[in-house]
Amino acid sequence: MEHKIKKVVLAYSGGLDTSVILRWLQNTYKCEVVTFTADLGQGEELEPARAKAELFGIKQIFIEDLRETFVKDFVFPMFRANAVYEGQYLLGTSIARPLIAQRQIEIAEMVGADAVAHGATGKGNDQVRFELGYHALNPNIRVIAPWREWDLTSRTKLLEYAEHNQIPITKDKRGEAPFSVDANLLHSSSEGKILEDPALEPEEVVYQRTISPMDAPDKATEITIDFSHGDAVGINGEALSPANLLTRLNEYGKANGIGRLDLVENRFVGMKSRGVYETPGGTILLQAHRAIESITLDREAAHLKDSIMPRYAELIYNGFWFSPERRMLQALIDTSQASVAGTVRLKLYKGNVIVIGRESPHSLYSTRMVTFEDDAGAYNQQDAAGFIKLNSLRLRLGAAIGRRGGSL
Amino acid sequence: MEHKIKKVVLAYSGGLDTSVILRWLQNTYKCEVVTFTADLGQGEELEPARAKAELFGIKQIFIEDLRETFVKDFVFPMFRANAVYEGQYLLGTSIARPLIAQRQIEIAEMVGADAVAHGATGKGNDQVRFELGYHALNPNIRVIAPWREWDLTSRTKLLEYAEHNQIPITKDKRGEAPFSVDANLLHSSSEGKILEDPALEPEEVVYQRTISPMDAPDKATEITIDFSHGDAVGINGEALSPANLLTRLNEYGKANGIGRLDLVENRFVGMKSRGVYETPGGTILLQAHRAIESITLDREAAHLKDSIMPRYAELIYNGFWFSPERRMLQALIDTSQASVAGTVRLKLYKGNVIVIGRESPHSLYSTRMVTFEDDAGAYNQQDAAGFIKLNSLRLRLGAAIGRRGGSL
Amino acid sequence: MEHKIKKVVLAYSGGLDTSVILRWLQNTYKCEVVTFTADLGQGEELEPARAKAELFGIKQIFIEDLRETFVKDFVFPMFRANAVYEGQYLLGTSIARPLIAQRQIEIAEMVGADAVAHGATGKGNDQVRFELGYHALNPNIRVIAPWREWDLTSRTKLLEYAEHNQIPITKDKRGEAPFSVDANLLHSSSEGKILEDPALEPEEVVYQRTISPMDAPDKATEITIDFSHGDAVGINGEALSPANLLTRLNEYGKANGIGRLDLVENRFVGMKSRGVYETPGGTILLQAHRAIESITLDREAAHLKDSIMPRYAELIYNGFWFSPERRMLQALIDTSQASVAGTVRLKLYKGNVIVIGRESPHSLYSTRMVTFEDDAGAYNQQDAAGFIKLNSLRLRLGAAIGRRGGSL
Amino acid sequence: MEHKIKKVVLAYSGGLDTSVILRWLQNTYKCEVVTFTADLGQGEELEPARAKAELFGIKQIFIEDLRETFVKDFVFPMFRANAVYEGQYLLGTSIARPLIAQRQIEIAEMVGADAVAHGATGKGNDQVRFELGYHALNPNIRVIAPWREWDLTSRTKLLEYAEHNQIPITKDKRGEAPFSVDANLLHSSSEGKILEDPALEPEEVVYQRTISPMDAPDKATEITIDFSHGDAVGINGEALSPANLLTRLNEYGKANGIGRLDLVENRFVGMKSRGVYETPGGTILLQAHRAIESITLDREAAHLKDSIMPRYAELIYNGFWFSPERRMLQALIDTSQASVAGTVRLKLYKGNVIVIGRESPHSLYSTRMVTFEDDAGAYNQQDAAGFIKLNSLRLRLGAAIGRRGGSL
Repeated sequence: MEHKIKKVVLAYSGGLDTSVILRWLQNTYKCEVVTFTADLGQGEELEPARAKAELFGIKQIFIEDLRETFVKDFVFPMFRANAVYEGQYLLGTSIARPLIAQRQIEIAEMVGADAVAHGATGKGNDQVRFELGYHALNPNIRVIAPWREWDLTSRTKLLEYAEHNQIPITKDKRGEAPFSVDANLLHSSSEGKILEDPALEPEEVVYQRTISPMDAPDKATEITIDFSHGDAVGINGEALSPANLLTRLNEYGKANGIGRLDLVENRFVGMKSRGVYETPGGTILLQAHRAIESITLDREAAHLKDSIMPRYAELIYNGFWFSPERRMLQALIDTSQASVAGTVRLKLYKGNVIVIGRESPHSLYSTRMVTFEDDAGAYNQQDAAGFIKLNSLRLRLGAAIGRRGGSL
Repeated sequence: MEHKIKKVVLAYSGGLDTSVILRWLQNTYKCEVVTFTADLGQGEELEPARAKAELFGIKQIFIEDLRETFVKDFVFPMFRANAVYEGQYLLGTSIARPLIAQRQIEIAEMVGADAVAHGATGKGNDQVRFELGYHALNPNIRVIAPWREWDLTSRTKLLEYAEHNQIPITKDKRGEAPFSVDANLLHSSSEGKILEDPALEPEEVVYQRTISPMDAPDKATEITIDFSHGDAVGINGEALSPANLLTRLNEYGKANGIGRLDLVENRFVGMKSRGVYETPGGTILLQAHRAIESITLDREAAHLKDSIMPRYAELIYNGFWFSPERRMLQALIDTSQASVAGTVRLKLYKGNVIVIGRESPHSLYSTRMVTFEDDAGAYNQQDAAGFIKLNSLRLRLGAAIGRRGGSL
Repeated sequence: MEHKIKKVVLAYSGGLDTSVILRWLQNTYKCEVVTFTADLGQGEELEPARAKAELFGIKQIFIEDLRETFVKDFVFPMFRANAVYEGQYLLGTSIARPLIAQRQIEIAEMVGADAVAHGATGKGNDQVRFELGYHALNPNIRVIAPWREWDLTSRTKLLEYAEHNQIPITKDKRGEAPFSVDANLLHSSSEGKILEDPALEPEEVVYQRTISPMDAPDKATEITIDFSHGDAVGINGEALSPANLLTRLNEYGKANGIGRLDLVENRFVGMKSRGVYETPGGTILLQAHRAIESITLDREAAHLKDSIMPRYAELIYNGFWFSPERRMLQALIDTSQASVAGTVRLKLYKGNVIVIGRESPHSLYSTRMVTFEDDAGAYNQQDAAGFIKLNSLRLRLGAAIGRRGGSL
Repeated sequence: MEHKIKKVVLAYSGGLDTSVILRWLQNTYKCEVVTFTADLGQGEELEPARAKAELFGIKQIFIEDLRETFVKDFVFPMFRANAVYEGQYLLGTSIARPLIAQRQIEIAEMVGADAVAHGATGKGNDQVRFELGYHALNPNIRVIAPWREWDLTSRTKLLEYAEHNQIPITKDKRGEAPFSVDANLLHSSSEGKILEDPALEPEEVVYQRTISPMDAPDKATEITIDFSHGDAVGINGEALSPANLLTRLNEYGKANGIGRLDLVENRFVGMKSRGVYETPGGTILLQAHRAIESITLDREAAHLKDSIMPRYAELIYNGFWFSPERRMLQALIDTSQASVAGTVRLKLYKGNVIVIGRESPHSLYSTRMVTFEDDAGAYNQQDAAGFIKLNSLRLRLGAAIGRRGGSL
């Protein structure tokens, strides 16, 4: 029914699964495959992916370090919103997918490809995030999702296909991984298999980015984070690029057992799933951003942000980064951050991020106004009487006709 | 201008400040004063308040233990909403005020009083919370707020007034307290004076309800909490009344350094203030409630709750517990909790509340659905293709006329 | 792939299309078909459907008058919310689908059917609304959507199939209808074909439920509507059942050219479509309900309702009537309506619904409070000063550090 | 208590009331008064205000035509949001106050005044709107609200004061006006006295800007409105400046009996009030803007706008135009309007605004996609099956454990 594919850009990690996909695309579509491998801070070397791709006869191989772009244009805008999905998840996987999709589409247009392919499964959110991005950025691109198309429905079949197609299988891949991992500079996520029962505690082996709070130092580490226009720009007074800053925070977080989360969440495709997340630097950053906002943001600006945040987080989780509604919300959020600047002091201790000080040249906190001492007329306590009388007027009118206590 | 007061019900703690208020009411309004002293779990003995009131010639003295009502009818309904003000504050003071106001009005009606009085200052939120409650519950009651009316604007004047009126001053009250405290079964809050500069870390002496995470045991404490209809009903398998349950959680929290918060928040009256809160049991309860909801609540039910939560929390913070809008939101929230039941397992460790298991007879979590293994047809991966295609249709139509990537 | 169907309950109108579907089900699935024909006030006789069904050898034929249920349990709850989709559409089609789905499932369970079928096309919203209802009410039911399955993709093929299968085709069905119609007691909707170009005005022939405002009487018709608990209960002082009341309002609306709407809307499946709607009685009802709420509903109750209304309307439009989130929102809405009672006076005139009076025993409108005349102390104008001072406090603090006019 | 006033800028209409205020300011504060009279399209000559002010010895007299600024920078941004307060009110008075406040503050800073004064009463919204603007724009300015300060609490006292102070009283002002009016280019509002009983229909004499629908022509008037970036830019193909465009629409509206509204609304100060509004051009503009958005705005962009609209409208109604939250919402709204361009065709007929066509170079409406005819593969109906299956997955999982029909 569909017309033939000529050239496809594959999001390629160099691992076994995407190598099988690579070969499967060649076998199935008889098309040229272009590989794209991105460094988003997942902590793996990328160059082996080149060698592997060459083994498959790939001619156009893209290997790119996107870490700075990732943090500057995706992670930081999201953190301006204090985005948290379902009250807890810092969206570490969700926020990486749009960048990969964007770059894949750019490469596809550059090399004249008519399709893109990804290695996400048919049950998860990532397929949605990749494909919504592809479609929004190029409405004519063909999308190939091998996990939804092929019949390699078990590990055994996959390995057989690999062997049959001369795909090298490293020893540790023979056995099946006890859980599945995704990682980038913001976080790592683990799910599946041994983690599937939400009644059971994850084993310590699951955690890869953080030491246990139990193993963290008995002494608190104290740091400061500087902000400008809502973004973190320095640590302990040293200016750092976005990716370097997040890398540094990850080190602090890891060392102090910060940022672990064991969560049952609701997927966009309709089921509940259980994930174990580690977001060491992001967890620190969120607390620090909230703290600097607490003295620089107007109350109603802050409450408006809080009220739209769940929707914003949901959009990103569901894969609608490249959508009009996300852009509109971003405009609202970015507008709020002009004066969100200053320095936050933190103690990091065995899983705790403790704010111990905030200062800003744009502080709206007025000691003179709030003081218990004589305020020299800054605030007229009589005003409170009128304030309360008019705020209660509707309630008094209701009570006067028998609707007491706000009853309806 | 206002007509004469005959009888006033005073929210009376028995301390120096409300004793001065008591005498001031007698002196200023020449009216009978009825005292009302409530045990909300603040951790002070109440009987001394009776003796003191008698010293002032008070004839009608109400001393009541409201702890169970407080937790059952105020704290628990609020926790069903996962209410958090400005992303962090668990509303410990806010939620106690409506109950005091309600009981004061009930007593006023019982004893035929035409006024009520409270000891909150003119700069804070509590005056608003008390008075909105009074007005909503009885539109004709007169409200006396001495701190906004009198001229005892300094500590020295207050002490002079006390001495001049034969009010006993305990030695420790001679000097001024270094900060101000409010406490009940849910939390204690400290603010003012030495805490006024948000750039400075609170001294350890400020904390009264929790030991420091640093001083907490090196070994995690493991507990379970049972839920029914969204409320906690038992700990470690033992059924407990609401107040007993919260008391027990407070002990666990205190011992493990849990529930401290150092926050700059926005008051309803328009200024920013800095508070130090300790909510040991509430912090545990919030995590546990979120965890039991994570497996029993439908996704959209959960997201709807999340989306209205900031507004609900703001209402409570601002003092609108007895309002139509709070009742409407409560109806929505309570409707959602019918199947929020089951057991959550937690580790408490040096300030950390770590969810390590959740189980429920009403669990919507389906291992069969989510599994990475063969799911025996529970989920058809092909469905995802159509799901994505239609979710992206509007984006593709936009991109097709040049509005790529969701641009507008 | 799927297992065999034994018995299917078909939503059957008796018209040509659903007759073809009926035969196609028999031919394709070799299963027993049960027909279900409901009177929702679409204005067609139902008994011919019985005769037709018998011609096809159907043994179990359900023909039911659901008008009262429709208005009482679906239309009225929705009108309590003042629900309007995309600012204009009164959801006349959307609100009928859940009832049909519900009754189909009930019948399926009664007759032991393992499947249900509907006649909605694969491009529209109705397939979604039917099927979400089916799935939510019975997770095991099989759903057959012939328009998505068969190859009768053109009118010609459909007619051929009919002829080939001895399905009687009335003369007027030979030619193709110039547009497609759906109708029930709340509204009629027309779309497709001659209506597809949104730049062109619909011809007068499209309208079936209303005369043109141009042809309506030159004199206004005056009526009153009585409300109780948010629902209309009488017209001109006469108590009426829900369906009778809506029928009566439809007559008033029709005669006065009220309730026409020509709209481009956004479908849940992702495309824009153009519909022409006629909701004569509903348009009157909405205005009247808003008017009675205007004097009986507290301000914040009303604003809260307004703020959640778009979401509620979207849920109904998208087909999520039988969902937790709709039930939660309904609880909020219904809670608000306890005192929404009284009488509204209206003038109906050439397309206009003009509110000319509202009265209620629960009125919160206080002439004494609002009067320009002396109010005898009901309202103290000095209170406004304090009210304004505290409402502006945060803005003054912002301006004082250079963020004038609310700039950020 | 407050320090002396030196110079005050008064919002001066030249009418009796503000003339009394002018003299009262001179008498009471012994200060210099600067008058500011603005043409916002209220339809009165301004030059007489100069002569009158000179009679009072005023040296600095500002008379300014602000109509273009009013429509361009206040009315149009608000209409981009389709802002409607409490479902009906187009905010005609609310949107004019911030401009007056802004210009008053600018003049005060220019002439070195230390105070501003306005003629709004102590019961209404306008005092709040003026003063929030003043405070937000200049935190140090003194605000004088004579109606809250003086003792001229009856019409008789006011006239006596006028006579006693040689203020000329035109004959028609001797008797009391039967209702109070505010007007500008967007609307006129009438309230008070004979309009105070919401059970009674307003007499025809109340209406000043529109003829009755009953008296409007029997023939429809057809017009087109061109839009660019969300703003109206031309009528019937003729490009018009903002104020000229709105003036023209007012003429069309007036002649066709369009834009009358009789409403009970909720004031920010806590009471309900009844207003009669006439917004002829604005009513047409709102319909036209919705229509052009209907084909150019993405669904979720439109729904997001709809969801924040009630809050945006409330902000403007309450007087928070110059606030961070209004600016943030405006950023969101303005971002959405980039492609809201094209032409809308309308019929105006006896109170009805009927959209009869919309066209745009940026139209997202796709006839090819939506057609009932063969769409040549534009839309794959099979996609709908997967879309529905995954949208219902959570509901099916719920039903499978007994929570049927979305019950909780």
